[in-house]
Amino acid sequence: MTLNNPSACAQPLIRRIATEEAFTIPEVVVALRDVIQAPGQSLDLEVLRRVYGASLDSRSGLLSALLDLEDGRVRDMDENGVAMHLLSLTYPGVQLFDADTATDLAILANDRLAETIRRHPNRYAGLASFAPQSPLRAAKEMERAINRLKLNGFIVNSHTNNEYLDNRKYWPILEAAEALEACVYLHPRAPSDGMAGPFRDYGLDNATWGFGIETGTHAVRLILSGVLDRFPKLKLCLGHMGEGVHFWLYRIDLMQARAQSWGIVPKLQMKPSEYFVRNFVITTCGQEDHLALDYSIKKLGVANVLWSIDYPFQSTAAAVSFVDTAPISDVDRAAIYHINAERVFHIGT
Amino acid sequence: MTLNNPSACAQPLIRRIATEEAFTIPEVVVALRDVIQAPGQSLDLEVLRRVYGASLDSRSGLLSALLDLEDGRVRDMDENGVAMHLLSLTYPGVQLFDADTATDLAILANDRLAETIRRHPNRYAGLASFAPQSPLRAAKEMERAINRLKLNGFIVNSHTNNEYLDNRKYWPILEAAEALEACVYLHPRAPSDGMAGPFRDYGLDNATWGFGIETGTHAVRLILSGVLDRFPKLKLCLGHMGEGVHFWLYRIDLMQARAQSWGIVPKLQMKPSEYFVRNFVITTCGQEDHLALDYSIKKLGVANVLWSIDYPFQSTAAAVSFVDTAPISDVDRAAIYHINAERVFHIGT
Repeated sequence: MTLNNPSACAQPLIRRIATEEAFTIPEVVVALRDVIQAPGQSLDLEVLRRVYGASLDSRSGLLSALLDLEDGRVRDMDENGVAMHLLSLTYPGVQLFDADTATDLAILANDRLAETIRRHPNRYAGLASFAPQSPLRAAKEMERAINRLKLNGFIVNSHTNNEYLDNRKYWPILEAAEALEACVYLHPRAPSDGMAGPFRDYGLDNATWGFGIETGTHAVRLILSGVLDRFPKLKLCLGHMGEGVHFWLYRIDLMQARAQSWGIVPKLQMKPSEYFVRNFVITTCGQEDHLALDYSIKKLGVANVLWSIDYPFQSTAAAVSFVDTAPISDVDRAAIYHINAERVFHIGT
Repeated sequence: MTLNNPSACAQPLIRRIATEEAFTIPEVVVALRDVIQAPGQSLDLEVLRRVYGASLDSRSGLLSALLDLEDGRVRDMDENGVAMHLLSLTYPGVQLFDADTATDLAILANDRLAETIRRHPNRYAGLASFAPQSPLRAAKEMERAINRLKLNGFIVNSHTNNEYLDNRKYWPILEAAEALEACVYLHPRAPSDGMAGPFRDYGLDNATWGFGIETGTHAVRLILSGVLDRFPKLKLCLGHMGEGVHFWLYRIDLMQARAQSWGIVPKLQMKPSEYFVRNFVITTCGQEDHLALDYSIKKLGVANVLWSIDYPFQSTAAAVSFVDTAPISDVDRAAIYHINAERVFHIGT
């Protein structure tokens, strides 16, 4: 196993840490297949019936790539000069299961993830799963995942049973993440039932549009609810170039200030944009647009921009080429490729 | 009446044409007050109860400013060196009324608008309203508004009765706009009932977040439905720096291509981003962020970026200062201030 393959990239010695890299375990796949065969019309079920239907592997080999934490994945990393995957249980995590199943499978996935990292400590780090369906047990597992399993942060797939993390019932989760100084990666899922309607046509339900709108709306709820005044040190991560939220910050600030002056929204201690810069980092995957990267660095500061591939859903070569060829300084490139990830996710240098 | 006030701005001689400038007429206000007093929980009713409630004028004088097409408005223009308002009936237009009321009020508003322009031909141009509730009568009024009243294009406030313009029933409207070579300004309104859920809290329903998500989703539906292959010369305008849609174009292209290769979405003749550049222009109002302007010019070409104030909802001085101080060439500044508006909205030079 080589750290990097010098022939595959322009800068063979830079440490590339990819931060939104998906895996799954057979037990979760079996449980998901049960869920998607049951009745239900949520957009996630629609999306997953396509992804986990019989035709998936014949289309793209996605499922086998998700299950592979050994040879195929490491070969893809080596061929593209990728030092490390920060692994996370793939969408939709455990959030479609009943609370007991979800809690058990999160524990199992975290154990399996920790074992994998122990086998490959230089190639893998990991984000722990938890079951928001049972917030107190989630907080307990979060503590175990960081303090005992030495995982690097958390992943959650946007809403849970159509509720968002600003809901007071989920505050034990936010409190645990803040206390553990562990970043929560707010990963997309399809729009919740309450906003599903216009996304049911033309493939808007998935990563083409709906995933980003769902997750961006979740982030804006966290900001505008005031919950980040309650948990000021909470760190959150948005993929897909920040799910576009920071393109809107000027307007959000303007309109929130007006609404606040009229007394019709929660009173915030800071401007919405200031929470975004303080409490959020973003990653690049799936938005390999140098203009969007330039905007993001200038708007948020390079320290808030991390690199990700979204393996195996997106091309490693494209993700590497994107940052390798970005018209930025090598100092900024190093920040995006590894320095920010090492800081935010407590990855040893 | 002066064309520009030299003392108010850095470049007194440039022709500033503002393209999303709201007005209303007393008859529409009366009809809206009836609608919002009736039962109903749509987000628009929630927003409008705040805007048209008794407290509005005591808060901000918005309603009187919307009704004023003479002295107060012209004074604001003069004080800020604004040459022209491209006027449009304010949100939510006639789209909350029954089909007959809506059709009648659109005709009345268009007549009143045309009279106003005749009184001030150098200071005003106008976008015609129509009632999508009755698509055939809408198409007829669209023809009258352009050919007889000599108005400059159209405005529509996103969805109508929770349906979007890609729905085949609205194709007579798209066909008329294309045939008349008249741009349709796709103005925001609150998220439709089918996506209202997560926007009901913390003031997400309005211009802070929901307006843009609703309108951006509408634009993406128009692109991904394939309707722009049916009406290839249709021209649409998005305010608020494109409602953020063009920040997503890389990802939309990537994911739409994958979904199309799997045969699960409508087959398009071009990439989604190519429709956006061909069929859409954007305006700046409410996103007075030089970084977002820079991104937009580079992504879409300066010919696709127009200027607007969103009078009287936003500050004219801020909108002028935004473009006056933008780090762009004077050629680009002239394109944004007036050349693009003259071309897209057929405004005499």
